Amino acid sequence: MSTRTLVRGGLVVTAAEETHADVLVEDGRIAALAAHGSEAAAAWTAERVIDATGRYVLPGGVDAHTHLDFPFGGTFASDDFESGTRAAAWGGTTTVVDFAVQSVGHTLREGLDAWYAKADGKCAVDYAFHMILSDVDGSSLKEMDLLVEEGVTSFKLFMAYPGVFYSDDGRILRAMQRAALNGGLVMMHAENGIAIDVLVEQALARGDTDPRFHGETRHALLEAEATHRAVQLSRVAGAPLYVVHVSAREAVAELAAARDLGLPVFGETCPQYLFLSADNLAEPGFEGAKYVCSTPLRPREHQAALWRGLRTDDLQVVSTDHCPFCFRGQKELGRGDFSRIPNGLPGVEHRMDLLHQAVVDGHISRRRWIEIACAAPARMFGLYPKKGTLAPGSDADLVVYDPAAVQTLSARTHHMNVDYSAYEGRTVTGRVETVLSRGRVVIDRGTYTGRAGHGVYTPRSTCQYLG
Amino acid sequence: MSTRTLVRGGLVVTAAEETHADVLVEDGRIAALAAHGSEAAAAWTAERVIDATGRYVLPGGVDAHTHLDFPFGGTFASDDFESGTRAAAWGGTTTVVDFAVQSVGHTLREGLDAWYAKADGKCAVDYAFHMILSDVDGSSLKEMDLLVEEGVTSFKLFMAYPGVFYSDDGRILRAMQRAALNGGLVMMHAENGIAIDVLVEQALARGDTDPRFHGETRHALLEAEATHRAVQLSRVAGAPLYVVHVSAREAVAELAAARDLGLPVFGETCPQYLFLSADNLAEPGFEGAKYVCSTPLRPREHQAALWRGLRTDDLQVVSTDHCPFCFRGQKELGRGDFSRIPNGLPGVEHRMDLLHQAVVDGHISRRRWIEIACAAPARMFGLYPKKGTLAPGSDADLVVYDPAAVQTLSARTHHMNVDYSAYEGRTVTGRVETVLSRGRVVIDRGTYTGRAGHGVYTPRSTCQYLG
Amino acid sequence: MSTRTLVRGGLVVTAAEETHADVLVEDGRIAALAAHGSEAAAAWTAERVIDATGRYVLPGGVDAHTHLDFPFGGTFASDDFESGTRAAAWGGTTTVVDFAVQSVGHTLREGLDAWYAKADGKCAVDYAFHMILSDVDGSSLKEMDLLVEEGVTSFKLFMAYPGVFYSDDGRILRAMQRAALNGGLVMMHAENGIAIDVLVEQALARGDTDPRFHGETRHALLEAEATHRAVQLSRVAGAPLYVVHVSAREAVAELAAARDLGLPVFGETCPQYLFLSADNLAEPGFEGAKYVCSTPLRPREHQAALWRGLRTDDLQVVSTDHCPFCFRGQKELGRGDFSRIPNGLPGVEHRMDLLHQAVVDGHISRRRWIEIACAAPARMFGLYPKKGTLAPGSDADLVVYDPAAVQTLSARTHHMNVDYSAYEGRTVTGRVETVLSRGRVVIDRGTYTGRAGHGVYTPRSTCQYLG
Amino acid sequence: MSTRTLVRGGLVVTAAEETHADVLVEDGRIAALAAHGSEAAAAWTAERVIDATGRYVLPGGVDAHTHLDFPFGGTFASDDFESGTRAAAWGGTTTVVDFAVQSVGHTLREGLDAWYAKADGKCAVDYAFHMILSDVDGSSLKEMDLLVEEGVTSFKLFMAYPGVFYSDDGRILRAMQRAALNGGLVMMHAENGIAIDVLVEQALARGDTDPRFHGETRHALLEAEATHRAVQLSRVAGAPLYVVHVSAREAVAELAAARDLGLPVFGETCPQYLFLSADNLAEPGFEGAKYVCSTPLRPREHQAALWRGLRTDDLQVVSTDHCPFCFRGQKELGRGDFSRIPNGLPGVEHRMDLLHQAVVDGHISRRRWIEIACAAPARMFGLYPKKGTLAPGSDADLVVYDPAAVQTLSARTHHMNVDYSAYEGRTVTGRVETVLSRGRVVIDRGTYTGRAGHGVYTPRSTCQYLG
Repeated sequence: MSTRTLVRGGLVVTAAEETHADVLVEDGRIAALAAHGSEAAAAWTAERVIDATGRYVLPGGVDAHTHLDFPFGGTFASDDFESGTRAAAWGGTTTVVDFAVQSVGHTLREGLDAWYAKADGKCAVDYAFHMILSDVDGSSLKEMDLLVEEGVTSFKLFMAYPGVFYSDDGRILRAMQRAALNGGLVMMHAENGIAIDVLVEQALARGDTDPRFHGETRHALLEAEATHRAVQLSRVAGAPLYVVHVSAREAVAELAAARDLGLPVFGETCPQYLFLSADNLAEPGFEGAKYVCSTPLRPREHQAALWRGLRTDDLQVVSTDHCPFCFRGQKELGRGDFSRIPNGLPGVEHRMDLLHQAVVDGHISRRRWIEIACAAPARMFGLYPKKGTLAPGSDADLVVYDPAAVQTLSARTHHMNVDYSAYEGRTVTGRVETVLSRGRVVIDRGTYTGRAGHGVYTPRSTCQYLG
Repeated sequence: MSTRTLVRGGLVVTAAEETHADVLVEDGRIAALAAHGSEAAAAWTAERVIDATGRYVLPGGVDAHTHLDFPFGGTFASDDFESGTRAAAWGGTTTVVDFAVQSVGHTLREGLDAWYAKADGKCAVDYAFHMILSDVDGSSLKEMDLLVEEGVTSFKLFMAYPGVFYSDDGRILRAMQRAALNGGLVMMHAENGIAIDVLVEQALARGDTDPRFHGETRHALLEAEATHRAVQLSRVAGAPLYVVHVSAREAVAELAAARDLGLPVFGETCPQYLFLSADNLAEPGFEGAKYVCSTPLRPREHQAALWRGLRTDDLQVVSTDHCPFCFRGQKELGRGDFSRIPNGLPGVEHRMDLLHQAVVDGHISRRRWIEIACAAPARMFGLYPKKGTLAPGSDADLVVYDPAAVQTLSARTHHMNVDYSAYEGRTVTGRVETVLSRGRVVIDRGTYTGRAGHGVYTPRSTCQYLG
Repeated sequence: MSTRTLVRGGLVVTAAEETHADVLVEDGRIAALAAHGSEAAAAWTAERVIDATGRYVLPGGVDAHTHLDFPFGGTFASDDFESGTRAAAWGGTTTVVDFAVQSVGHTLREGLDAWYAKADGKCAVDYAFHMILSDVDGSSLKEMDLLVEEGVTSFKLFMAYPGVFYSDDGRILRAMQRAALNGGLVMMHAENGIAIDVLVEQALARGDTDPRFHGETRHALLEAEATHRAVQLSRVAGAPLYVVHVSAREAVAELAAARDLGLPVFGETCPQYLFLSADNLAEPGFEGAKYVCSTPLRPREHQAALWRGLRTDDLQVVSTDHCPFCFRGQKELGRGDFSRIPNGLPGVEHRMDLLHQAVVDGHISRRRWIEIACAAPARMFGLYPKKGTLAPGSDADLVVYDPAAVQTLSARTHHMNVDYSAYEGRTVTGRVETVLSRGRVVIDRGTYTGRAGHGVYTPRSTCQYLG
Repeated sequence: MSTRTLVRGGLVVTAAEETHADVLVEDGRIAALAAHGSEAAAAWTAERVIDATGRYVLPGGVDAHTHLDFPFGGTFASDDFESGTRAAAWGGTTTVVDFAVQSVGHTLREGLDAWYAKADGKCAVDYAFHMILSDVDGSSLKEMDLLVEEGVTSFKLFMAYPGVFYSDDGRILRAMQRAALNGGLVMMHAENGIAIDVLVEQALARGDTDPRFHGETRHALLEAEATHRAVQLSRVAGAPLYVVHVSAREAVAELAAARDLGLPVFGETCPQYLFLSADNLAEPGFEGAKYVCSTPLRPREHQAALWRGLRTDDLQVVSTDHCPFCFRGQKELGRGDFSRIPNGLPGVEHRMDLLHQAVVDGHISRRRWIEIACAAPARMFGLYPKKGTLAPGSDADLVVYDPAAVQTLSARTHHMNVDYSAYEGRTVTGRVETVLSRGRVVIDRGTYTGRAGHGVYTPRSTCQYLG
């Protein structure tokens, strides 16, 4: 007989339903849901019974955009797979999809293997990989097919960062054409990096070296432009497109226009664009460096467009783009030259809570919260219904969530390996109470009970929003 | 102990999930779902076990737009609540929301009571009511509040049919303002009837009396115009809006534009607009009269916009606007004058099958089929999750559907009380096999086992897409 | 030999050209233009030579929207044809197109004859008529054809003012259809008066009786709605459309969208919408009544859209909608009930100067000034090139304009018969110096030298922007 | 006393006016216009009197886009400045603006001087130069300022032709920023050449080598994309933009959207896009090579959008992009590889006639003909009113045009130095009869009376459509 866990008395919230149901876990998977008080529920017994009365029972979060142990600007993101996935677990996220990197001159295989090695035996929760294409040529295009077979079904390209990750439009087109054939999904960092680099150079030459110029030089219209370009290239290629970390309202408008045409174009935003703004970048005394990421934080007015995009489904996913760098020693590399500040923010731990705050604030509904944070990323990247929902047969990645608890976010209390919080002192309503990863309790009412290596690599099918 | 029915071995398809699960019914409600082969499932026993191997297990359809026993143009729709709801059951629809009518000079109460009486004891499946407002004044506005309390939470107004159901923009605005306060949802027949009547009069004066002129005089731009006007009035009132039977691509564009703004604007279309066209209206020998309804069938090119709207969620619901009139004796009233042809088509029986055909044809996904036919209408009109899904606690309105069966639609075999089929001879793939209404088998592998009076009136909460 | 006047040394500015040319007038018409210093120019002699050195030489203004001696709300506009056209001459406007009114139950003929009589022998400058259709029926539709023949080629309809000038959409459609046949141009007061009256009634019932509620109840979306509706009706009719006194940015957007489709849709705005705002309506102590007109003044943010529309040619004409009512005795009728304030503002005298100020302010170019104030209204209403330009053969309606003079607008100095100025105390740069009407000097460096009866009725051809 | 020519009895048609006027030329300039029959006109005498009764009198055409003696693909355009400008004169075009070319690694000065030398003493009509920027760097940016001072005020950049004329977005941005400062106008070849080159390579690899694949690989969406990108870059730079040879309807839509925003964005199309189509590219037997140019000819459906854009002023200019290559020996270079076909069509001779045909066909009005062919290019490129109109003071570049003559276009009769006509056998209504260039008759009723060297270099001011 299997090992059974029973979660009793909660309100099960998925992207689709809010159900007063008991949840029965058998051997790491959801076996059944039964209405509270039904005979079926009453008949159930289990080794472990978790009382979820007054709590939500949620699918574990799926964070489709993290950069653990990531090399950038001569340093590495401060969270590795161990600390990063543990922080994810604390925040109710039970799956992360991280980015393996092809280095220029190297194969996809080499890059992917390196990332397998980085993650292996380290993770507190399950993980999967996207592949960053840095060097599109005949050989890497062929490798794409193999990776899709292997469960790495999404490929990130950069219209920004010339000389580093940048691909020109010809390479992008070729990759999209290949994806159209092999079922892969092209993910795009949509900023016109060639033009931005001109503005950056000019700003530095003028002596505009403070962090806020990071935001001013990465012009919103240059995000919108690249977004439009990516859409047109995807139309020519007949391929779907997923635009990462959308932050400008003009970019949202491009996505909305594409979707009105019925095109398979998708968009992701991140909590930092929803809750922070260019005001943070302009904080005095180099504090702004804490908020340097690309696309950049935008003026506050852009937030309304992002929330609206999330409501109208012109944006489908909220990921974190978690890529933390310590203020001391890392962010400080850019004192006197904002272009040397490592790009990235910590966030993997707070996504579920911040988005619950958006429910409290009336920006989105409870079900939409789960959709953008769990179900949609799982479907987008071929993990559904194993991940992203609580249905019979799904992995028992499950969060017992206290919607009434109040907590204050702070670097003193968070579990990410970074010396500051982008949300320092912010109070939010709602807190993760207990977390199961494939049936195993990894967070138990405020105690971490997981272990490095519990999390396993999870191959993915292709995007489930297509065909 | 409760009465239990167990549906084994099927693929449970809801708007949100496709789950290989057994479904346990206790006393008319879904008690639990358990993964095939799980210990939980294995442990279940039941009085009745339905084998759904190789079948879909679907929530019963919700048809949010029927006109049973409806007076129009001096005659009555040929299906009453008995024949109409029985035909619905045959077609896998287990809830209909019909339109009670306020007559000019009478109260809403009188109209509603008349419809309660029409339906009482007659229905094979559950039913609810919208209210048609024909006479908006201070008194009927106050009555709206009472009806919302009573579970009649949606109110239809007509921008067409001057002198009959027509309300001018002032009345519409007042009704919308009231709905904004009491939570009601205004449903709109959006055609500029004042302008259309001019074109009709001119056509008849020219001798253009054949059914096809019904379509030509009800100009697509006059549907788009009214749709835009309804949207603007709803913005002024701060109220949500549901546009019924959208047929023109230009009207879809108005809805898409409104939704891009984040407005609470919704749209419904019907199978006749998706599968039939103005070509049918032009069939020779007065055959076109069979296809006379308003909004009218449009040229074939409009269909693509409707399908796209269903995919992009600019249209949310497919209802039937079931309002049958026999060709002989009823449609024939309009020989020599298309304006005297009773407006309406039979359809309540075929909606689920035609939309499954759309799945087969690649227009929509399987889950979207269930969304537009079951879940969305249930949410839109406050019946979810009692109706529209299969979740623990939902009513056991359940359809076992054979996706591979092939059937030919015909008046000879259909169960609606009307002497013709709008789809005569059309072959579709997929067929309803067994239907449960609140746990009771009403269609059993091709035999009607229900009874008039089984269906009960179902009060509704307010629209679940708001707030 | 003819009577000759020679205007020497000025910069001739038309909608098309800026030419350093002398202008030779023979017998009331422009005979020739010759380059300064050419032999041709040097050879000219004339009875009267006007020195325009350092001045602009402009075509006389064409104000296509005045209401002289106009009955409204139980009183009459305070300028009759004598005082009104004299004020026009002072302001450099040498042609007015006024609105003859069909009263309900009366023929167009009766209305037009009444207006011929009002104007006859009174006017200082030339004039023409549009016709207001208050009672569209078979008989008045036929009369439209006759009026077009007679030189009254434009017909105004109202979507506002139910019970007074209002026409329903059927009547509008019929009038448009007729205009499509006879070449007439339908001019539209585009506000949803039926809905507005509901808001007005509700405001008054709430005790919101001050002038500012005039603006708040005439909702911008209800102007946009009516504009869209008028466009769609004109498409159905296959007729052109001219929307009068556009004030809301949302209405400009509707016009821009129509014009992007290539539709023959035109728009007019007025100086009051460009230079005044809802702030004026909210001035304390019933002062706001001075600014009550319909469409109403809008919040200041709308001005940018109007200026942009004038630059992009989505708006083609600036008229005044001159319809003055004295503050004392007329505007005061609405104390305690804004709906009783006569609608209208004085303005015929200041249009050319205010628009020159817009040139100074950089909103429009010098040529665009003449286009929107002279050439476009003349073309729109079939008066070109007799009016609206300075070309060989044109009427010698000519203004010598001092672009550097500074003046302060005030009721103490203006020549309109009204006891207040909507622009009291406003200083503008630029002033009319000398005005010729058909070769006769009517303003001579600050002295009125014209006479009542000099101005003649001028029949018009059809709109010159079509076909 | 000056030399005088008098053009009597014609209808003077400019972009702005149609005037029955005699035109007096003194010493190469328009001295005066006088109404037919006026005393002023009657008084005129002249050495030469041209009878224009029954004719139009037009300003000479301004062709703002020619490539005479142009190196491309290892060969040279077959018309040099002598043959090309003579052909222009035959066709009623009295000014050409040709493109001087900066070669990579060379200064603008060198390129410009080379083009001065090419043209010097050769031209039958006046000419000016744009500058092609092939190598944007700090030095060439500084040179831009000098060229603007010198009368070369427009700078063409290419988003196509990687490795030849191509500039990346950073260089484009820098050039636009410089133009924003020095008043220059950036002209853009807007096609995504990087992506197109991928499609070309793939087509050739597939064996799709015929001329029609030239059109198929230069995808309409890649023109629209580049157009959008150019607009966004110009917004970031705060600079105006002129897009050359627009051919795709999707590109027109991008321009229309930009102009609705009030942006200083302009567009040009060419007769070949209006009168020819992808059908020509698909002509059998390598005939399609005659029609190879970039942007390519599009499917016939695009023409309607171009005509509409010309009517709505979303396109302002029609130039020829005259760049002829003989079929034998030049076009033939691309047999078996469409990418080696020299890009370009002959056309300088037929622009005025083809556009008059468009007047006859009802696409545009007579005045619009002159606007897009004469006045707008003159204003766009700082030549107005010296060129582009007939006003006192303008150069006496004047065409007597017979609107009723019928002619058949053919390589046998045309005067361009190229062995085929793109319009072989096409009959058009209207023909140039007599042409004056600065008062001198260069075409006299079918005889060329001009001479190489009459035409002079004409420095230009900056774009006259800007502030």
